[in-house]
Amino acid sequence: MVTSSQGPAAECVNVPLADRSYRIEITSDAVGGFADSIIASLGDVTHVLVIADQAVEQSWANPLAAALESAERGTAGAIRVSQTSVASGETSKSIAEFERLLQWVSAEGGDRRSVIVAVGGGVIGDLAGYVAASYARGIRFVQVPTTLLAMVDSSVGGKTGINLPTAKNMVGAFWQPSLVLVDTSVLSTLPDRSYLSGLAEVIKYGVIDDAEFFDYLESHASDLVARDPKALRHAIARSCQSKASVVGEDERETSGRRAILNYGHTFAHAIESTAGYGTFLHGEAVAIGMQMAAQLAIDLGMCDATLLDRQTKLIVACGLPTTWADADPDAMLPVMMRDKKVAHGKLRFILPTRLGAVDLLGDIDEAAVRDAIVKLKK
Amino acid sequence: MVTSSQGPAAECVNVPLADRSYRIEITSDAVGGFADSIIASLGDVTHVLVIADQAVEQSWANPLAAALESAERGTAGAIRVSQTSVASGETSKSIAEFERLLQWVSAEGGDRRSVIVAVGGGVIGDLAGYVAASYARGIRFVQVPTTLLAMVDSSVGGKTGINLPTAKNMVGAFWQPSLVLVDTSVLSTLPDRSYLSGLAEVIKYGVIDDAEFFDYLESHASDLVARDPKALRHAIARSCQSKASVVGEDERETSGRRAILNYGHTFAHAIESTAGYGTFLHGEAVAIGMQMAAQLAIDLGMCDATLLDRQTKLIVACGLPTTWADADPDAMLPVMMRDKKVAHGKLRFILPTRLGAVDLLGDIDEAAVRDAIVKLKK
Repeated sequence: MVTSSQGPAAECVNVPLADRSYRIEITSDAVGGFADSIIASLGDVTHVLVIADQAVEQSWANPLAAALESAERGTAGAIRVSQTSVASGETSKSIAEFERLLQWVSAEGGDRRSVIVAVGGGVIGDLAGYVAASYARGIRFVQVPTTLLAMVDSSVGGKTGINLPTAKNMVGAFWQPSLVLVDTSVLSTLPDRSYLSGLAEVIKYGVIDDAEFFDYLESHASDLVARDPKALRHAIARSCQSKASVVGEDERETSGRRAILNYGHTFAHAIESTAGYGTFLHGEAVAIGMQMAAQLAIDLGMCDATLLDRQTKLIVACGLPTTWADADPDAMLPVMMRDKKVAHGKLRFILPTRLGAVDLLGDIDEAAVRDAIVKLKK
Repeated sequence: MVTSSQGPAAECVNVPLADRSYRIEITSDAVGGFADSIIASLGDVTHVLVIADQAVEQSWANPLAAALESAERGTAGAIRVSQTSVASGETSKSIAEFERLLQWVSAEGGDRRSVIVAVGGGVIGDLAGYVAASYARGIRFVQVPTTLLAMVDSSVGGKTGINLPTAKNMVGAFWQPSLVLVDTSVLSTLPDRSYLSGLAEVIKYGVIDDAEFFDYLESHASDLVARDPKALRHAIARSCQSKASVVGEDERETSGRRAILNYGHTFAHAIESTAGYGTFLHGEAVAIGMQMAAQLAIDLGMCDATLLDRQTKLIVACGLPTTWADADPDAMLPVMMRDKKVAHGKLRFILPTRLGAVDLLGDIDEAAVRDAIVKLKK
């Protein structure tokens, strides 16, 4: 499934979406080489617009912009590079920032052949991707994700967008990137907690789709915690491959298949919300949420207890929490009932049947959900 | 090609776009029936958001909203209807109005199954269509065009969008409607000049794509000027059919085929711009622009002079201008050079080879273009 296309130090994942297919290149110590990849993949590029998170502008966006500007292309001529930065954090996913960036692209002379390159985490990918989807009714864009979560989650799937004051991710477009460029070296400067929280989504792919990958994670957890480049490249590639196969079956979230990516997330959103946003990082809440979901599956007789045992050990080995002492079903249940995955007032969950396989279950008894929450309240 | 599906007083055009195909229903005196069409075509609709041009809110949006609200659907339950209006005119195609409408849809509890119904001309279709494309990454929308231009032009093609302060239609999406409902009775209240200007685009389809339709227009020009419902239904259906066949071959404007819809428009934009916006209505400038394009084709030996004779007579019969006494090539040429259809500083034109067929010609000599302009300066 995962093939190496650039020698031993690179992995490459194809996201198969008919005429919108694209490639994810996963390397280490290669930021200079990113310019070559962009030029090779998007042959006729003459104008690149780099939109970077201000936190990585100096370290990652500037060298990439410089390499693009100085690229030797013979008769194809030099590449003109425009560059701007965006404040870190969710508040940048606003209509005001969307408008500012559109006017900036216009002022920089952007046309249908211009290419936007997004350098940052999920916020930058979502925002810059939506600008690319909207300018001139859609121009190409390249993602350079700089957090582990963005590498294994938002770099695949084509969801772009911004927030309304009252609703997260409520405005946007499905717009696939032309290319995704991952360099694991970017992760070396991430704080520990933020880095480790990205591993929760990696573990998720093992549980929902790929038992063999789960085995790999069990035997390489310490490498991953130590940010070993080889282990990271493999884990990122397998995660992207899993997400790509799910998204390939349900690009626009119409068949329901894509819902399996929400394993642990209904609980996680209720944990984040009742703990107060900021108490847990998203990945930490996902780790606890997956524990609650696995417990619920066991209580409902859907899978045996060894799944929860192995999941618990792997989450612990990745330095993530597995329980929550303040879990309160009375506070969490109302939040879960408002979740967009609730249909007609019935709770629905993605629950594992064995490692590598999940089912979507509707109409689950509230008492069973409360029980699962209380069992993880330690 | 055009089939009647609802008895003698209705025509129906299918726009074939794979999984985004949709139907255009063209009737007269049928606004009450529009609610039935919407319910029949979008079976599971429970929430409709009507966005209307304020100029047609009372006369056309209110009755449609009332008919939707009172529709008898048995176990399917009543339809909840939300309604808002937008100020007439191009200035409503702004990011500010886009944001207001998105927040309104959210406040009205819009979800992925909600349906937006746009009642108005091109401005409303473009704006409300872009809101539909963007809310929850895309919800269904129905177009109820209320000008002749919107009926034969923007109702087919899926181009939605808004303006930046510095660039028209620079932000948007390709987003196909689920259904287009045309009632020719809406046209009865249009002022003469505005109504007649819509006929210029109708004539355009005869020249670029459909010689038989051109014959029909010659023999029914007086009926069309008198707004005869039967002639109008036929002319609208044939125009939509022509545009649908072009758009079906080139939905996202990538192959160049869609460019033939710009016949006369490179001249027209230069006429509108140098005359000062507001001097000519768009259709009036298109009429003169088609005359200049036909003249240029004759001068270049691409077609014979009878094409221009017949086109001139038909335009006159439709009450539209064929010449422009103030035409100034020195002022028009620079505008044409900035047109987005110019590639690498070479002028490109859509020029007729005979009635019903056009070619895209690049690298046309500037002197020939000047000559054609001067010949229509009468």
